[in-house]
Amino acid sequence: MKEKGLLIVLSGPSGVGKGTVRKAIFSGDTQFEYSISMTTRKPREGEVDGVDYFFKTREEFEALIAQDKLLEYAEYVGNYYGTPVDYVKETLEAGKDVFLEIEVQGAKQVRDKFPEGLFIFLAPPSLNELQSRIVTRGTETDELIQNRMKEARKEIELMSLYDYVVENDQVEAACDRIKAIVQAEHCRTTRVAPRYQKMLEVE
Amino acid sequence: MKEKGLLIVLSGPSGVGKGTVRKAIFSGDTQFEYSISMTTRKPREGEVDGVDYFFKTREEFEALIAQDKLLEYAEYVGNYYGTPVDYVKETLEAGKDVFLEIEVQGAKQVRDKFPEGLFIFLAPPSLNELQSRIVTRGTETDELIQNRMKEARKEIELMSLYDYVVENDQVEAACDRIKAIVQAEHCRTTRVAPRYQKMLEVE
Repeated sequence: MKEKGLLIVLSGPSGVGKGTVRKAIFSGDTQFEYSISMTTRKPREGEVDGVDYFFKTREEFEALIAQDKLLEYAEYVGNYYGTPVDYVKETLEAGKDVFLEIEVQGAKQVRDKFPEGLFIFLAPPSLNELQSRIVTRGTETDELIQNRMKEARKEIELMSLYDYVVENDQVEAACDRIKAIVQAEHCRTTRVAPRYQKMLEVE
Repeated sequence: MKEKGLLIVLSGPSGVGKGTVRKAIFSGDTQFEYSISMTTRKPREGEVDGVDYFFKTREEFEALIAQDKLLEYAEYVGNYYGTPVDYVKETLEAGKDVFLEIEVQGAKQVRDKFPEGLFIFLAPPSLNELQSRIVTRGTETDELIQNRMKEARKEIELMSLYDYVVENDQVEAACDRIKAIVQAEHCRTTRVAPRYQKMLEVE
């Protein structure tokens, strides 16, 4: 009998660098399967359908919602973003670890449906650091920044819903921690012992 | 406020290679403090007091037992072996991780006194070979197989008292897993969240 894979959910406050960390993890050798998100927003320059996102029309996306085909979804700035559930389930059944990089609202939905998942919160080294990162994007007003900070406070409070907190002080260090967490989780007695139990039962 | 260190307890069946794995971990750079055991057995050739063991007389050892100065102890082949509790407590308070490599009986005692410790069971690869042994059972007597299965059952029962199981298939691989487990444990939300809560209070 094949052991099921782990569902790894990386989330965290907006602007903390989830996408950068996720890309760094998948730039090298990795044992994870990346679950590509679905979105109704238009592809940006260089983005490829089926690589960066699955690009869908609003009608297609809403049909998938109606059919309960999304593990999680949310609407941001007028566009839907979500995770196709079939790919996740099939990949886990095949014994492979699936990696999701999603917003905190989505992570909450996944936690409800997959409480056995591995929930990792990517945290800013400090709130000030978070603010400066948002400021250096250069595209936002003071009011927007203040709102983001308020949001970040709320999101840091959300941290308690996660199993692990990884500080994103340096991308490489954050990647190492995430990989260590997954490796450790594969050694959890609750995961390993049943495998040995099964061997005895076969006899 | 300084965060307390982790108490890491490596144990497992006799003959599994605990000592070899522990030496490999401490042969390189390590962030752990090794808790040197105390014993009443005579030093072997090349063994140094305070490095390999703290060598004590039987009277000294029994005085320490009477004063409740041992985190765990046991008697093997007429000699006492034990872990001095003061060193462990002081090192943890100083924020450093303490590493113990002890027998399963000792690990049980530590679990009772330090349930918040990190308990790692080093498993023999032979457990994992169970399945192939069963497949090739034609080459072994039923009695031998039954004895091995019985032994395996005992080891698996023991396993359930630990947080993690690390298979000692290769020393280097086992060391990597142990280090990953400790790194992951430092990222546990229950350890990290209080630090962030402090940050929110400050700002």
